[in-house]
Amino acid sequence: MQHPTAPIPVGVLGATGTVGQRFVTLLAVHPWFVLHALGASPRSAGRPYAQAVNWKQTTPIPAAVRDVVVRECVPEAFRECTIVFSGLDADVAGDIEAAFRAADLAVFSNAKNFRRDPHVPLIVPLVNTAHLAMIPQQQAQFTPPLARGFIVTNANCSTTGYVVPLHALERAFGPLEAVLVTTLQAISGAGYPGVPSLDIIDNVVPYIAGEEEKIEWETLKILGGLSRADASSPGGAGALAFDMHAAHPLRVSAACNRVPVIDGHTECVSVRFARRPPPSPQQVREALAAFAPDAQALGCPSAPRRTIVVHEEPDRPQPRLDRYYQDGAGVSVGRVRQCAVLDIKFVVLANNVSIGAATSSIINAEVAVLKNVVKY
Amino acid sequence: MQHPTAPIPVGVLGATGTVGQRFVTLLAVHPWFVLHALGASPRSAGRPYAQAVNWKQTTPIPAAVRDVVVRECVPEAFRECTIVFSGLDADVAGDIEAAFRAADLAVFSNAKNFRRDPHVPLIVPLVNTAHLAMIPQQQAQFTPPLARGFIVTNANCSTTGYVVPLHALERAFGPLEAVLVTTLQAISGAGYPGVPSLDIIDNVVPYIAGEEEKIEWETLKILGGLSRADASSPGGAGALAFDMHAAHPLRVSAACNRVPVIDGHTECVSVRFARRPPPSPQQVREALAAFAPDAQALGCPSAPRRTIVVHEEPDRPQPRLDRYYQDGAGVSVGRVRQCAVLDIKFVVLANNVSIGAATSSIINAEVAVLKNVVKY
Amino acid sequence: MQHPTAPIPVGVLGATGTVGQRFVTLLAVHPWFVLHALGASPRSAGRPYAQAVNWKQTTPIPAAVRDVVVRECVPEAFRECTIVFSGLDADVAGDIEAAFRAADLAVFSNAKNFRRDPHVPLIVPLVNTAHLAMIPQQQAQFTPPLARGFIVTNANCSTTGYVVPLHALERAFGPLEAVLVTTLQAISGAGYPGVPSLDIIDNVVPYIAGEEEKIEWETLKILGGLSRADASSPGGAGALAFDMHAAHPLRVSAACNRVPVIDGHTECVSVRFARRPPPSPQQVREALAAFAPDAQALGCPSAPRRTIVVHEEPDRPQPRLDRYYQDGAGVSVGRVRQCAVLDIKFVVLANNVSIGAATSSIINAEVAVLKNVVKY
Amino acid sequence: MQHPTAPIPVGVLGATGTVGQRFVTLLAVHPWFVLHALGASPRSAGRPYAQAVNWKQTTPIPAAVRDVVVRECVPEAFRECTIVFSGLDADVAGDIEAAFRAADLAVFSNAKNFRRDPHVPLIVPLVNTAHLAMIPQQQAQFTPPLARGFIVTNANCSTTGYVVPLHALERAFGPLEAVLVTTLQAISGAGYPGVPSLDIIDNVVPYIAGEEEKIEWETLKILGGLSRADASSPGGAGALAFDMHAAHPLRVSAACNRVPVIDGHTECVSVRFARRPPPSPQQVREALAAFAPDAQALGCPSAPRRTIVVHEEPDRPQPRLDRYYQDGAGVSVGRVRQCAVLDIKFVVLANNVSIGAATSSIINAEVAVLKNVVKY
Repeated sequence: MQHPTAPIPVGVLGATGTVGQRFVTLLAVHPWFVLHALGASPRSAGRPYAQAVNWKQTTPIPAAVRDVVVRECVPEAFRECTIVFSGLDADVAGDIEAAFRAADLAVFSNAKNFRRDPHVPLIVPLVNTAHLAMIPQQQAQFTPPLARGFIVTNANCSTTGYVVPLHALERAFGPLEAVLVTTLQAISGAGYPGVPSLDIIDNVVPYIAGEEEKIEWETLKILGGLSRADASSPGGAGALAFDMHAAHPLRVSAACNRVPVIDGHTECVSVRFARRPPPSPQQVREALAAFAPDAQALGCPSAPRRTIVVHEEPDRPQPRLDRYYQDGAGVSVGRVRQCAVLDIKFVVLANNVSIGAATSSIINAEVAVLKNVVKY
Repeated sequence: MQHPTAPIPVGVLGATGTVGQRFVTLLAVHPWFVLHALGASPRSAGRPYAQAVNWKQTTPIPAAVRDVVVRECVPEAFRECTIVFSGLDADVAGDIEAAFRAADLAVFSNAKNFRRDPHVPLIVPLVNTAHLAMIPQQQAQFTPPLARGFIVTNANCSTTGYVVPLHALERAFGPLEAVLVTTLQAISGAGYPGVPSLDIIDNVVPYIAGEEEKIEWETLKILGGLSRADASSPGGAGALAFDMHAAHPLRVSAACNRVPVIDGHTECVSVRFARRPPPSPQQVREALAAFAPDAQALGCPSAPRRTIVVHEEPDRPQPRLDRYYQDGAGVSVGRVRQCAVLDIKFVVLANNVSIGAATSSIINAEVAVLKNVVKY
Repeated sequence: MQHPTAPIPVGVLGATGTVGQRFVTLLAVHPWFVLHALGASPRSAGRPYAQAVNWKQTTPIPAAVRDVVVRECVPEAFRECTIVFSGLDADVAGDIEAAFRAADLAVFSNAKNFRRDPHVPLIVPLVNTAHLAMIPQQQAQFTPPLARGFIVTNANCSTTGYVVPLHALERAFGPLEAVLVTTLQAISGAGYPGVPSLDIIDNVVPYIAGEEEKIEWETLKILGGLSRADASSPGGAGALAFDMHAAHPLRVSAACNRVPVIDGHTECVSVRFARRPPPSPQQVREALAAFAPDAQALGCPSAPRRTIVVHEEPDRPQPRLDRYYQDGAGVSVGRVRQCAVLDIKFVVLANNVSIGAATSSIINAEVAVLKNVVKY
Repeated sequence: MQHPTAPIPVGVLGATGTVGQRFVTLLAVHPWFVLHALGASPRSAGRPYAQAVNWKQTTPIPAAVRDVVVRECVPEAFRECTIVFSGLDADVAGDIEAAFRAADLAVFSNAKNFRRDPHVPLIVPLVNTAHLAMIPQQQAQFTPPLARGFIVTNANCSTTGYVVPLHALERAFGPLEAVLVTTLQAISGAGYPGVPSLDIIDNVVPYIAGEEEKIEWETLKILGGLSRADASSPGGAGALAFDMHAAHPLRVSAACNRVPVIDGHTECVSVRFARRPPPSPQQVREALAAFAPDAQALGCPSAPRRTIVVHEEPDRPQPRLDRYYQDGAGVSVGRVRQCAVLDIKFVVLANNVSIGAATSSIINAEVAVLKNVVKY
């Protein structure tokens, strides 16, 4: 794979929001990408970034963007960008991202709007970068076909963390049959202002609107493969389709809770393997620790050097102590043990604002560059 | 059933501890029981209660006990008590409670030491007061047999909350086959000083030592029945034994987490019924709401008027808002819905310091009085 | 004083908000007042209260109001009410409260809009009910003069707590010269949704917009007296005016912080007395403990039985343990000691949603009833 | 000043504790110092560091020390060390540090035991490194005089933060007359296990044992100068003594609170200057921002590049957002404004585990190396 030899100009949509601030922080020091344009709502457009943003990161606003004038989220304002990262809210992301794609821009989105689109890959970069193979078919839907424009989405923050070990397990031991996951999700997953403090201090909220459905559905799309449709398919014989893990049907049940944690989603997972007997806890630990995703092999600069750390201490992972593992790009697993109902249970921790959001989009773009899916 | 006509003198062991303070608070206003003696460690013995205790309740120390001189936890100091409630720590509870029983005192304990004893009932008062039938056999182990002394334990705080709806479901729909529970437990469950604040603010600890084993084992003892042993039993043919749900083997898998909540354990539960097809979510909701335990029928003054409240709002129960339901003696259930892996899933909230600890012991004693198990 | 012999019908404006919910909770069990009408925004009007409100109290919605249909906040809808309590937000309270007064209704408001009005008393009921003497002059401003309508406001929640001990000290030891107060304020003071959790978990915000100015100004109006203006006054010779503590100028400096506490404002106060030598810490403790306000002497049913509790333990008061003192109507003081810069320093704790908000308005109304300021 | 040309071997006493872990983390990457020996209690001695420590940092244990065998805290075990940093608890620090000094080792201590010793400098490295001039006299107390051994302490974590701006103000505007400070202190200041979570979640504790006395006394020693005693001094004419700000007596009044914040002490400060009229808020802001301490001029590698950042936003500094400023070695000030009682008030934030503890000791050692007080 050839790494780019010249800086690639990129833009950020929704740059003043929670995820947008993370994009800006990460891209300001990226080895390949250079921040060229920042987009936000009409209310912010025209103002220097430092004035438009209510900055909530623990590092200062990168000096290079303090005085950058925020643009409106229209494609004409991002013409010089090869890639656009979207941290837009779902209520506006659909139309804007579609317009950017139609203007032949490569869009890597953190929004949910296109995740269920049958031609849009839903990619967790440590899991299913192979789904980028759908891009040509996505571009071919347009008349004339798009040369460079497309949309790739990343997954919901609570899905991202736990599909990494699930994928590692399927790679090592074959298909899973059932997954039961209970999440303890950080408040930053709800954006800003997000969760009112009166709702969460000294409290747990055992419900996050739409979250369980997202986990249950997205897991199938991500862990499933791409298959060629038969003649009865609306796309016609030979069209590519996401198979939703159809070869080995997978039942997923999620229960989602909000807890008073700033960053880092903790997830208690139980799984049942198709293979009997199932692997032992020790085999599972070894398979998880050994897992290396394509993104790492490709040499993506933002991919974690080690993907999954398996804790031996009985009380880890913990969000406050482990969310910075691999700068938030890695995944922590602990407490791998037998489950009396399914086969194996364990705890996953993933940083919802890093690998669970902006970092995922950036690695997705890195992979797409290395695989020549992004034309530059 | 005849309610007592004269006050019954009671004592509290471990009266200065977290659970002991709850016993004192509740017994100070009890309609039948009158606080006669308070016991604590030798360090506290001899001092007025108000000086010996590091009071952490939001109500003041009851006036009637402020100046009561704390006693050592020896049976001679509690001779006038008919009932003794124990909030002792596990490291001393074993020997002390045994000594009190041997001195022919009725002991209702919150400690774990005797929960696995084959002659000691492990009673959640909203579930299995029928297990008091074991007491004569327990007394008969002694030479000469005890006339009034025995030990009854209540369950671990995380077990107590969720076995109430499980029992209601078994009563309505027959035996369960599998239960998977993930807990989000309050810090007060660990006593005082308990959980260091550095470990839990902005954090979750996905491990509580021994807790998962307790839930998995205690559930079987509580939900199981009493059966007559056959001739091969060490107790001989006809001896009573706790059958650990043996007629319909039940698999229980627990994953326990500590969260930054003061009081109130939240538990995400998935269950599978033996009966096919299983009941619908609506049938489950109705069965839970209709559930009335024996303790209520008997007229126990500390039993909740309604046992289970079923919330219709999607985001309830929540510990901060719902832990005071029925003065902490009731159980809240919400989010009853289908589970893609087992049959039905729901959320349970129980107040770990009330029904999960002191309140349970007190209702157990009330039942034992009404059933003439306590002699007075 | 004659207590009312028949129920007095009352209404609540802003009944679905945070303060409004407290009004509803308290008034549902009030011995004199009976809830007759609930008002809220046009969005809520016409719906049963239980549907219109996002109930956030730890006690259930009072049964008597669950099905009460919410009204718009217009005087015609509250004609049968003798008293109207206002928990309206400041952005609408001004016009609505003025309209209710003009319609000859007695308004007791928790909003800030009229606090600086030269004819509106700003009353902390444990301090300056004497300021009700301004009501006739307020009514006389209208043409024709109002017979029953007027507005009385209570103070900002952070002012209320600490002026009670300040007033007790002035009554015992004469005027204060300087007060320096640093607050640690609960999140509930900001209403709902109020403070985003991302801003306050594991954090302190050393700023609350407008709060320091409110404390510094309101303290002078509350602790000051009513005096007769001279001929140069715009009101003419003999008009009553709030003197803003003018006889003994008082310097007040406030520093306000938001902390992650649900309810209960903690305030660190240092004071300097005019009198030299100043009283000793022990004299201050005795004066505070002995303080009995007029509201208590009058027999107001919602007044605390004891107003100020003086803690001897060095680490009290604490919001979580002491905010329920006297059902939140009392004030806790602790750590009375010498100040190396001023004279005496101490810590005050007051429940901002009880005595700091709804409870104050209700006691104000009780006093006004007993003093025949409210005509019924 | 000559920077050292060879690594300087250093040891850490109390290496498994909260402050010790910070020392280890910082020293593992220090440009001059190399970790040579780790000391802890006899219980830990003999075990590899990674096993002996309950590691609570968000970065992993430095690889170079994982397998280092922990030693007992006796001088013989640290003979090869030029400098020893002490993170010992106060209950053992006195004897151990004295023994290390007597064995001619240079001790930089975070413990309180020697802070009030008339020959031990109490140094905040951004303020009073000039007090190192006391070392020769400290060494001369011994028979024979010590050649290399001495003790230097740093200040209490709550003192450290706010004396930096106080010193900057005195340098710019002359002596202060009065300082009133109210602190909101993080839980990490109490070590581990430290503050029980039941005491601080949803709570404030308005008391920290001994803390107010420490602030009030240490401020005078740090801000005061060194003066030559007259003939009546016990040390004889010409002996050096800490003058405790005697030339311009300074009154300091502190009120200390514990708040639910992990790291970062927030302090609300009001000051009165001797000079009349006092400086304006704008002059104060400029003086604070311009302040550069000796440690910076000397080129200490751990000194912050900028010492004080002055925030213009009204709601800053905040501990969660600002505690990492300059890797925790700098001090944040905000809300500089007039005080109605004294002259000027402002908010200070300092990272209590960095500049407030280990970082201070390390910079002190760096200064002592550069000034040739440490012989190596």
